[in-house]
Amino acid sequence: MLYSIIKSNTYQDSLRLMQLSNALNGTAGINQVSVMMGSPTNKEILRSAGLDTPEVDGAKPTDLVIVADVADAAVGESLLAKVDDFLRYRAPVSGRSGLRSARSLERAVGMLGQADLALVSIPGQYVASEVHRLLDRNIHAFIFSDNVSISDEVALKRRARESGLLVMGPDCGTGRIRGLPLGFANVVHDGSIGLVGASGTGLQEVMVHIDRLGGGVSHAIGLGGRDLSPEVGGITCLQAFRALAADAATDVVVLVSKPPAASVRDEVIGVADELSKPVVAILLGERVEAEVEGNVHYARTLEEAARVAVELAGTRSSRPVALCPEQRWIKALYTGGTLASEAAMLLGDSLGLTGNTEHRHEVIDLGDDVYTRGRPHPMIDPSLRTERMAAVFDDPENAVLLLDVVLGHGADPDPAGALAAVIVDGLARVHADGRDLAVVASVCGTEEDPQCSSAQTLILEQAGVAVLPSNAAAVRHAAAIVRRRDASTVSMPATPEPIRRLLSESPRIVNIGLREFADPLLRLGAQVVHYDWRPVAGGDPKLQALLDALS
Amino acid sequence: MLYSIIKSNTYQDSLRLMQLSNALNGTAGINQVSVMMGSPTNKEILRSAGLDTPEVDGAKPTDLVIVADVADAAVGESLLAKVDDFLRYRAPVSGRSGLRSARSLERAVGMLGQADLALVSIPGQYVASEVHRLLDRNIHAFIFSDNVSISDEVALKRRARESGLLVMGPDCGTGRIRGLPLGFANVVHDGSIGLVGASGTGLQEVMVHIDRLGGGVSHAIGLGGRDLSPEVGGITCLQAFRALAADAATDVVVLVSKPPAASVRDEVIGVADELSKPVVAILLGERVEAEVEGNVHYARTLEEAARVAVELAGTRSSRPVALCPEQRWIKALYTGGTLASEAAMLLGDSLGLTGNTEHRHEVIDLGDDVYTRGRPHPMIDPSLRTERMAAVFDDPENAVLLLDVVLGHGADPDPAGALAAVIVDGLARVHADGRDLAVVASVCGTEEDPQCSSAQTLILEQAGVAVLPSNAAAVRHAAAIVRRRDASTVSMPATPEPIRRLLSESPRIVNIGLREFADPLLRLGAQVVHYDWRPVAGGDPKLQALLDALS
Repeated sequence: MLYSIIKSNTYQDSLRLMQLSNALNGTAGINQVSVMMGSPTNKEILRSAGLDTPEVDGAKPTDLVIVADVADAAVGESLLAKVDDFLRYRAPVSGRSGLRSARSLERAVGMLGQADLALVSIPGQYVASEVHRLLDRNIHAFIFSDNVSISDEVALKRRARESGLLVMGPDCGTGRIRGLPLGFANVVHDGSIGLVGASGTGLQEVMVHIDRLGGGVSHAIGLGGRDLSPEVGGITCLQAFRALAADAATDVVVLVSKPPAASVRDEVIGVADELSKPVVAILLGERVEAEVEGNVHYARTLEEAARVAVELAGTRSSRPVALCPEQRWIKALYTGGTLASEAAMLLGDSLGLTGNTEHRHEVIDLGDDVYTRGRPHPMIDPSLRTERMAAVFDDPENAVLLLDVVLGHGADPDPAGALAAVIVDGLARVHADGRDLAVVASVCGTEEDPQCSSAQTLILEQAGVAVLPSNAAAVRHAAAIVRRRDASTVSMPATPEPIRRLLSESPRIVNIGLREFADPLLRLGAQVVHYDWRPVAGGDPKLQALLDALS
Repeated sequence: MLYSIIKSNTYQDSLRLMQLSNALNGTAGINQVSVMMGSPTNKEILRSAGLDTPEVDGAKPTDLVIVADVADAAVGESLLAKVDDFLRYRAPVSGRSGLRSARSLERAVGMLGQADLALVSIPGQYVASEVHRLLDRNIHAFIFSDNVSISDEVALKRRARESGLLVMGPDCGTGRIRGLPLGFANVVHDGSIGLVGASGTGLQEVMVHIDRLGGGVSHAIGLGGRDLSPEVGGITCLQAFRALAADAATDVVVLVSKPPAASVRDEVIGVADELSKPVVAILLGERVEAEVEGNVHYARTLEEAARVAVELAGTRSSRPVALCPEQRWIKALYTGGTLASEAAMLLGDSLGLTGNTEHRHEVIDLGDDVYTRGRPHPMIDPSLRTERMAAVFDDPENAVLLLDVVLGHGADPDPAGALAAVIVDGLARVHADGRDLAVVASVCGTEEDPQCSSAQTLILEQAGVAVLPSNAAAVRHAAAIVRRRDASTVSMPATPEPIRRLLSESPRIVNIGLREFADPLLRLGAQVVHYDWRPVAGGDPKLQALLDALS
């Protein structure tokens, strides 16, 4: 038999609904139980599942609706007791975390002084009016909710653009602003890679791999899945590109998306091509013809996008290096013959050196017979290389010193130590001369090697070396450093002040909807207030619209 | 003034020479010091550096020669005292390690009962006759030494091939046989990827990255830099290919080389294409046109070669899965929409599904509205997915269940745990049915995520899941499992018994030359004896040749 429970005006968010559903599912004598709010859509779902009752038909969107297929009425009674228990005793988990909470937006904003950003995860039909209220107050919106109409999205984003505000989403799964996770978000390190994504788990996968490869994230600006549609026209994407290009914390921009509509693609890639910072684009499903076109580097997989971004930006341990215009050359001093071959090949590709004899880039394999005659191999005796390094530092036209560091049985017991001493000296001379020089390396070794790769990496990093995760990555990073200087600084439209502030100052955040999204923000010390949103006017959309018009 | 010291019949290997050179270099009053054996080549080097003296001119190849530019004769005297100290007191480091040592090859082999493999690192001019002696005794040779003529190399390799023996090198920097490091070698985990390489640091870089990506190495067979030249014709390479194809521990073969001569390339790639196991080829400097041609997967960088090999072989934690011919389909149940898109795209590419409607491969995005209506997102509530998994296990035509596991704030606190329970049950049913099924996943998360990616990975691995390092890698691994079954088993020439034994039984090793190469073997518990080789007959090549002819 069907047994239904209606708790009127008892709004529960989707997580609470799931907790209640899990609590009820274990009850003996129950075949099936559905726990939902009484929205028209949900009532339709119950109807098509054959779980509708006259009580359900009469339920309002703000009513909690429970329908169970039970053995007998007694089971139904025990179910009701469980529901009452749940509603009475289970305070939201985050209630214990010290999260401040308010019952109106005004109160929530008031508790913060002013709010910069709102995280919105209420049911879709209520989103548009709530976000208009945010825009009224000059608050950026991150909309996790889905089921928002595209016409509402266009209206919100156009209005936001006019006010210099960002509307991320709707259906925006993840984001990150100044280290603060928004929505579903992985814990990754801060760094200089800024992301723009019309995709939740796509952004997550790219960020996770950036982190694993030693890179870090400045911001991740979610767009929602329809921003690059012809209707929306990439409004938020273009705002985000320009904001990240102007953002001091960001060196490289990554775009994650399904292939945009053709007209939108032209504009988005056109703007990407003109940014003053390199752009990595992963347009999932689009066949990649060239790896690089102008300023845009195309990747075929999410993991590859992360790899290319780290190659361009360096790792989070890389120190910033400012080069003069006359510093143009890469000098690579290698101990491994094949690593040197790979370096020469990749540099040739990256810098287009085929047939070019005018350049002074150099890759020297110090293990070659020419250098080792009568001396041990440089993987055993680092002095063969360190003797030659001074000259690289002292030539004011050199931009990058590129090195391999090979560990393992047979190799020098501390190659990084031998290099570090000479690098610290060399950089001191370079700095005294008012210049800088990038030193880039990779460590060919494992944690179990006698020298331990992470220990050797640390020694190099402390000496000022950017240590990339592979030889190929180190070579491409060196090439990116040299190319970076060639990028003419494009005059971009100024970033609107509210967006500039969002990316450069700690945002004050209102959380509207799922309390759980506020917890990590609070733990990270962010200023956040939870607005304990409930549908007004019994959830009646018409009355809601009237109230919106009057407010 | 030049001061020279000649110690007649005092052979020192190159490491000892370096140690002596380092010990002398700190002496006050010395401008420059050279420490060498008195070979014709070395005497030429001293001459061209202006460091020749009448004493040096008269030195024999077995004489230790030290020439220093010193302030006065007294400094020279102090130098002589240091040299005498060094020769008297400094026992080789490995002398303390318990390494057994013999003064003749016969004695060394006798101490082992029989030897299977010799590690040769003596000066180049002595190598050929020493290796012929090894081949006389049915001993495989790993030749680290360089400066061996190509005609000697051809003669040795042809002779070895006739006897079913391997000659790795000369100039073979690294190798690995059944977990034992040869020459310069990184400490990597055992696994199912077998490598063949005409390059030292190239092999090292690929092995290091295989290890970092969670894969492992069965064997690494070095060729030396000239094996793929027209003169040698890839003798050792072809032997190695066939041996690894027949080797039970190896699932995937990787070739690392500079581009071979055209004629050799055709034969080598032709054999690779016909192996019963997939081959990954990195031919550094050759422009890669297609990613896959027949059985051969081409990589552009050493790191990419490692990545492709792990995608094909799986990780070292993957359990072996034997599929029946009727098991053909991949069923992918995803919680991440973009991860699902990437999976669909990569599967389409890998399996050539464009326009093919006959297949039953499936990628389902369970986060799609169709599945989530009235229910929480599957990243929050794993039951949406676990409910659908049983059917995948129970269809006997399914080959692979492919999953994403998304961690981070907002996601389920233990998605791997929820999956593992259902997977263990499902696999139990599958095994009870006399079948098997591959379960492949990737974890989108970091160590710092609330769920901790390595902890979640372990839970999955313990449930029998192959966890690949990215979504792209997981998808390609799933495709490789399905394709693997299509590879028709090619009838290959039988592996010669001595090579089969080398790869399948613990080799007994004679170390000839640098004692340091024996140390890691000894520490790993290998049977190894050091043959304390010295040049015979005062190093006179003619007398040596005469002795060879008589022996």
